[in-house]
Amino acid sequence: MPAPGAAKERAASALHLRLLRAQRRLAAEGRGAVILIGGNDRLAASGFANRLQEWFDARTVEVCAPLPGDPCHGGRPFLWPYWTKMPAKGRITLVVGDWVTRTAQEAARGELAKEALRERLRALRQFEETLLADGVALAKVWLATPRKSLRKRAQEAEDTEAEGWMVAKEDLLLADGAAARLAQECRRLASPAGHGWKTAAGTESKARDLAAGRAVADQLLRGRARLPKPRQASRLRPRGLLDAAVHQELPKEDYSRLIRKWQVRLGQLTRLAARRGIPTVVVLEGPDAAGKGGVTRRLAALMDASHLSVHPTPAPTAEEKSRHYLWRFWTKVPAAGRMAVFDRSWFGRVLVERVEGFCKPVEWQRAYAEINAFEARLAESGAVVLKFWLHLSKEEQLRRFRLRWDSPHKRHKMTAEDERNRAKWDVHLEAAEDMVARTDTPHAPWHVIPADDKRAARVAVLRTLARALADRLDR
Amino acid sequence: MPAPGAAKERAASALHLRLLRAQRRLAAEGRGAVILIGGNDRLAASGFANRLQEWFDARTVEVCAPLPGDPCHGGRPFLWPYWTKMPAKGRITLVVGDWVTRTAQEAARGELAKEALRERLRALRQFEETLLADGVALAKVWLATPRKSLRKRAQEAEDTEAEGWMVAKEDLLLADGAAARLAQECRRLASPAGHGWKTAAGTESKARDLAAGRAVADQLLRGRARLPKPRQASRLRPRGLLDAAVHQELPKEDYSRLIRKWQVRLGQLTRLAARRGIPTVVVLEGPDAAGKGGVTRRLAALMDASHLSVHPTPAPTAEEKSRHYLWRFWTKVPAAGRMAVFDRSWFGRVLVERVEGFCKPVEWQRAYAEINAFEARLAESGAVVLKFWLHLSKEEQLRRFRLRWDSPHKRHKMTAEDERNRAKWDVHLEAAEDMVARTDTPHAPWHVIPADDKRAARVAVLRTLARALADRLDR
Repeated sequence: MPAPGAAKERAASALHLRLLRAQRRLAAEGRGAVILIGGNDRLAASGFANRLQEWFDARTVEVCAPLPGDPCHGGRPFLWPYWTKMPAKGRITLVVGDWVTRTAQEAARGELAKEALRERLRALRQFEETLLADGVALAKVWLATPRKSLRKRAQEAEDTEAEGWMVAKEDLLLADGAAARLAQECRRLASPAGHGWKTAAGTESKARDLAAGRAVADQLLRGRARLPKPRQASRLRPRGLLDAAVHQELPKEDYSRLIRKWQVRLGQLTRLAARRGIPTVVVLEGPDAAGKGGVTRRLAALMDASHLSVHPTPAPTAEEKSRHYLWRFWTKVPAAGRMAVFDRSWFGRVLVERVEGFCKPVEWQRAYAEINAFEARLAESGAVVLKFWLHLSKEEQLRRFRLRWDSPHKRHKMTAEDERNRAKWDVHLEAAEDMVARTDTPHAPWHVIPADDKRAARVAVLRTLARALADRLDR
Repeated sequence: MPAPGAAKERAASALHLRLLRAQRRLAAEGRGAVILIGGNDRLAASGFANRLQEWFDARTVEVCAPLPGDPCHGGRPFLWPYWTKMPAKGRITLVVGDWVTRTAQEAARGELAKEALRERLRALRQFEETLLADGVALAKVWLATPRKSLRKRAQEAEDTEAEGWMVAKEDLLLADGAAARLAQECRRLASPAGHGWKTAAGTESKARDLAAGRAVADQLLRGRARLPKPRQASRLRPRGLLDAAVHQELPKEDYSRLIRKWQVRLGQLTRLAARRGIPTVVVLEGPDAAGKGGVTRRLAALMDASHLSVHPTPAPTAEEKSRHYLWRFWTKVPAAGRMAVFDRSWFGRVLVERVEGFCKPVEWQRAYAEINAFEARLAESGAVVLKFWLHLSKEEQLRRFRLRWDSPHKRHKMTAEDERNRAKWDVHLEAAEDMVARTDTPHAPWHVIPADDKRAARVAVLRTLARALADRLDR
């Protein structure tokens, strides 16, 4: 009869091969994988992450282990450090100190009131659903160490002064009976249907890692998540929401006075927001030649360059394409006190990508809910979120296109694409109307700005933004 | 006679076209451009950055305006926020609050002693030379506003409570006679030959922006920088530096005891380093199958996952290839208190890229100096920097390759490339010897570790690292 050690060796060897197979299969399918290593034992989680790196081909594995309270997170949303580390297609991210463990710890410390906890857990479930819908494989293991063992380890550490950190306060916290039940409830409520956590208990690290590793392999190999189809976006009536916009002219002399007034006001307000640590997210959308660039420059005029980031949104790079479409925007979420202006944005998913067929109908249909969730996360973290649709008439666009062709300074802005987009004017308009109707939320409202008169549009955007900031700052 | 206003309009229009032409030409040549907007007037610099975005095609322009003391910089080197924003090929970065202006301000406030200032300026010149050598176009304008005007503006701001920030303390500081001369000296000493600053003075913003814009266009259009060729890397004698390594076996029982000892010690030391905010950079290099992965895992065993980032170094992505080869490592510089382990690293430039001809001889020859400068920046920022060459004999490598082919767990590590590399063993070894000889510096020393015995190699690396940390931490 072989020794128990030999049996364990064989089991580890078999598991190692299974994990390599899962990794190869995911890579072949072009899918990323996220493995959450949670529980009440940080040392065990770190150790298991190391073990997994040994078992997988480590070249495509990355560890995401954000520190709570890292100043580098700069007041960004709770999910920010996780989003920015989500794997590209064919890659794996191991998460130590995952979103559910952190949430359970905060709740056990009484930092999350009942309502806030419920909100948080709903946001987490939405986030996991978003990953699954994007084809990401999700595996979740909860390493549970008995309270007695943790206490014993803490005592040993104290005696030898060797491993003080081996038991964190949070570990003991979650080992407590009531807190353990709370954590279990968190896991349940934050999980999409059919994607719950697996528990690996025990104190012997080799056996526990084997059990946890098997749970991971099972979850990774179970195939692509089957999610309920989002309901077909039904046609919205009445149509014509946007074309009802009334374009009014603003005389030049009024413009000079008004634009200056709102620039000065914005200058004051953004400096105050910077001091108070309040971030602002501004989205500019609208047809080609609607004047988004002009608005951005007027807006920036009296702001300090270090308070503002302007993000143009060109076609996604290869790096961006291999991730969820929201990823490249998550990485640009402004830190506390900064303002980010997006010249075109995540709404591309439900505008150009929808119209041009760059994504599947099921993908842009579920994007409304994903976008609302994303903006809700921004708002929860204290950000002022504003979205502007610069509405242009078809006639005015033609006039501006002609001017551009005639101007050597602006010709570079024209591409064949612009003409193609113009031909599909009505389809684009329909997409824009659906977008405004489905993503106009109290925490991130749309403002439709008639833009046939550039001057009026600029003043309107600056005024709206300044007023929103003033409201938030009580000014 | 036309009004002076009309003449200015025409001049602006001509400049606008010149800048667009420069931008197109740089894009066509596949070159990035960096435009430094310095001086003693932050408002003017912000304004000129906005103006340039108007003149250029803004889609490929990014503003880099780091805030001094931003907690997100996390104690990283002075140049870090700049490096991470350097433009990809065909793109432009505008720098507001540039490295020379910041340095002049620090010097004027007395924060940089004479010696430190000289060191800093030398580092800045090296940095600019590195950019130029990489084909980046560099333009630098210094916006100088007379002290009187700044004072007047500050007074007005106070009276109207409108624009408090419009004059920063730093602006007035550099407007002072002695400080202005100091700033001039900084500009001179930080500039590579033939790449000095242009000054645009005056208080009238349109005229000043025109003058500054012309200076930028001139500098961007002057063609690729001609830099002196680095001296041919002369052959180093005596050869055999590395093969002199004596491989000794470490018995298994000694290994278990020793590896545990150093893991515990490293656990303690890294937690202390985390508390004290001291970053650590570890580089692992060596032939295929030298055991770099095994060392990394042993090293990580008792460390908290959030203190450590392990960076494998696969072939560069498209995004990485379009930038300076050091860029992707600058983005991974660890924050205060963290450790970064690089499994292969920037030394690829003088190893595989040299051997395989992925870069030109002139490129890898100048890389030694660039790498020494990079590591000097790390060390200056307080980082412990250690480099390990795991030295393997040709025979032992063959033995390990055969084992890998025979093992289903390790076969995935083998590629046709490994065999090719093996065929060029001597050329690789020569490159490694040159590397160690030319980049072994007091602030970032090489440690050659005989690695034919895996156990001995692991213990040696952990011990060396622990001792270096202990030295720094006075433990």
